[in-house]
Amino acid sequence: MTTKMAINAKELFRNQHRLIRFIEQSIRMCSNQTLKQQQQQKTQLEADFQITKSITSQLSTAVPEPIVHDEDVGQQFAASALSVRLATPQQLQPKPDNAEELGFGKLFTDHMLKIYWHKSLGGWQKPQITPLENLVMHPAAKVLHYAVELFEGMKAYRGVDDKIRIFRPNMNMHRMNLAAQRSGLPTFEGEEFIKCLSRLLTIDSEWVPHTEAASLYIRPTLIGIDPTLGVASSDSALLYAILSPVGSYFKSDETGAVSLLADPSYTRAWPGGAGNRKMGSNYAPTINVQKEASRKGLQQVLWLYGDDHQLTEVGTMNIFMLFINEQGEKELRTPPLNGLILPGITRDSILALTRQWGKFKVSEETFTMHNIVDLLNKGRLLELFGTGTACVVSPVNRISYLGKDLYIPTMEQEKPLHETIRETLMDIQYGKVQHPWSVVIE
Amino acid sequence: MTTKMAINAKELFRNQHRLIRFIEQSIRMCSNQTLKQQQQQKTQLEADFQITKSITSQLSTAVPEPIVHDEDVGQQFAASALSVRLATPQQLQPKPDNAEELGFGKLFTDHMLKIYWHKSLGGWQKPQITPLENLVMHPAAKVLHYAVELFEGMKAYRGVDDKIRIFRPNMNMHRMNLAAQRSGLPTFEGEEFIKCLSRLLTIDSEWVPHTEAASLYIRPTLIGIDPTLGVASSDSALLYAILSPVGSYFKSDETGAVSLLADPSYTRAWPGGAGNRKMGSNYAPTINVQKEASRKGLQQVLWLYGDDHQLTEVGTMNIFMLFINEQGEKELRTPPLNGLILPGITRDSILALTRQWGKFKVSEETFTMHNIVDLLNKGRLLELFGTGTACVVSPVNRISYLGKDLYIPTMEQEKPLHETIRETLMDIQYGKVQHPWSVVIE
Repeated sequence: MTTKMAINAKELFRNQHRLIRFIEQSIRMCSNQTLKQQQQQKTQLEADFQITKSITSQLSTAVPEPIVHDEDVGQQFAASALSVRLATPQQLQPKPDNAEELGFGKLFTDHMLKIYWHKSLGGWQKPQITPLENLVMHPAAKVLHYAVELFEGMKAYRGVDDKIRIFRPNMNMHRMNLAAQRSGLPTFEGEEFIKCLSRLLTIDSEWVPHTEAASLYIRPTLIGIDPTLGVASSDSALLYAILSPVGSYFKSDETGAVSLLADPSYTRAWPGGAGNRKMGSNYAPTINVQKEASRKGLQQVLWLYGDDHQLTEVGTMNIFMLFINEQGEKELRTPPLNGLILPGITRDSILALTRQWGKFKVSEETFTMHNIVDLLNKGRLLELFGTGTACVVSPVNRISYLGKDLYIPTMEQEKPLHETIRETLMDIQYGKVQHPWSVVIE
Repeated sequence: MTTKMAINAKELFRNQHRLIRFIEQSIRMCSNQTLKQQQQQKTQLEADFQITKSITSQLSTAVPEPIVHDEDVGQQFAASALSVRLATPQQLQPKPDNAEELGFGKLFTDHMLKIYWHKSLGGWQKPQITPLENLVMHPAAKVLHYAVELFEGMKAYRGVDDKIRIFRPNMNMHRMNLAAQRSGLPTFEGEEFIKCLSRLLTIDSEWVPHTEAASLYIRPTLIGIDPTLGVASSDSALLYAILSPVGSYFKSDETGAVSLLADPSYTRAWPGGAGNRKMGSNYAPTINVQKEASRKGLQQVLWLYGDDHQLTEVGTMNIFMLFINEQGEKELRTPPLNGLILPGITRDSILALTRQWGKFKVSEETFTMHNIVDLLNKGRLLELFGTGTACVVSPVNRISYLGKDLYIPTMEQEKPLHETIRETLMDIQYGKVQHPWSVVIE
């Protein structure tokens, strides 16, 4: 089938999504030739950073423990009970032409996954895939008043073999359940959710961008919808997932690096709070601070904690520093999971990978703005970067701190570590190397 | 008109809300005779605590400053543009018989107030009163993911003169606007909102309970509804108000007092956070801690802060302590507005009243669990109580702290201050005394 024929057919059957998918796949078969060539051109990863297929659990810093459900959660849902109501041809949205220019989370796919939980009905109800549609809720719903809400961020990647993969989904499910426990919301079987989600991804698979510059962002969300104003556990909840084709998350400068506002008068998280859980309540108080950073021409907020101005997170990312330590060794350091830090899956993966490489010291230890200034003065700070699902790795080249600009030489390294990390992770995510972290959606 | 006639008429015209109101008002005219007798029987407030009509602004600890709107908020809304769509007779809900047994925020009135803000349409849109109805929103709405939401708690009281009053509404509007600024949500003209709200209260006036054991709780709410997943200011928002007839907020024991869990491993607010703003994000992380208190047979959480275990708030209330100080004086103390404390309107009113009384020392100073234990040991702790719109005053008789039970003699005082305060505030709120804080809805 030629491309021209395919385009004509596409015109004809624009609203027939099964046919469209068939045709688009045919087009893809042609363009895959090019992708394969690109793949062949790509040199093998340097031997130094060779990925092995087995990641020993010892190396992973956060092996999920099974979630123990509270008795009052009641029955669990099963993916085998999933019902599907497909969008009508009229409801289907045109897919974007330039996935690279999508921005973040502005456009959504044709379908969504919904699973209700009602205490009065014995627990979790049957999962359902429906066309993407508005939610209807009582104006007293707890989510609208007391932030009874939590979410996850995942991505589906279209591999060089045209297969669709998700990355360590069990980690997201574990974190989501921990957040549910912290919010008085019902816990659920992560594996069953992933099965339902996989079905959703299959249905909307043509929305997974056909480029490495983009991916399909997955937003699982759990909200309390009980329409009562007491500050208490919600007796009804909705677990849902929506999908959004996304380009890159941040506006960075032409070098690809971001600048940060580090203002010790704002705190993101504190001991005894919920800063280590992906709950909506951690985000609202950051928006105004982010606005202030923007007003000052800076791209992200560097969140400090304590009188010694410890670095905790950057924007919505974990933070890593590469430096030469007192012993003259290269060391990669990130703050420990002390309750103030979101246990990032990218963070965990970077720790596991770099420890496996064994080429430099890797540590989880607190570091402060004093350390940053001192290392800069001594010329021993090499790289500073944020990490997260949305951005993978986001290098930092400047921090505005107490009225001074600190220039970080992240982009001036000859063979920067953050680039090697990004490439390694993307090679796993886009299926260029086979790896147990990457789960193929069948 | 006799009561029997009225009941028959009520049966006949159940769904005709104008007629019902007329009839119910007639019934009230009869029962007002009883109320007036009760009022006459009630002895005048003790001279010691005589209320004067003028509260000098000097005595008020938090005089609201005018809100300065950001340029990008755009046009403001005006109450003069308010549109009203009344519920159909079929939509009207029966009013509860026993207002005292309502619980808190489970039942709602027939109408609601809605005002949309759309950046793309130039700012605030026309206010509208509609039947109480579900909200319809995109599953990516920011309020569902990043807790872009804030609220207020107010009450409408039916006075002994059958007039409906609200209490210091300008304070709520000021606090709500401060929360909007902190959340990257649009600010608005509080006075215009109160005018719209007054109209809503007039329409649903028969929902204001005819007893001092209940009132009509008002829940103004502001949410960000922009359907995009970036953690950023919302380009669309909805300001709305719903009304709920409420009885008492807390389950207390037979004495009317509550017991508290004081666990220093949980923290409600932190310097540099948003604990001093009535944002949804302050509440979600408290739900699980409240559940833990319940599991231990305790009614509320006493929120501590810092290594010295400072008392900050109790449940969703401010906290006050009456004690004999080092100088042998009686002193009423509450923590200062240091950023960790919600600036309660009941708190502010109690400070202003008791300072005006001039009968004991009144201070805004930090106090710790060590102070509590020490004062208890020395027999100098007299009363401990929470204060807030929902409960007015809630006496505390026990604190579970580090595995020990501390018994507080709040209920054992001969002429307890918290009762005098409650009566004074309720006399103002229910119109038994005329006072500038109480605003009659015309």
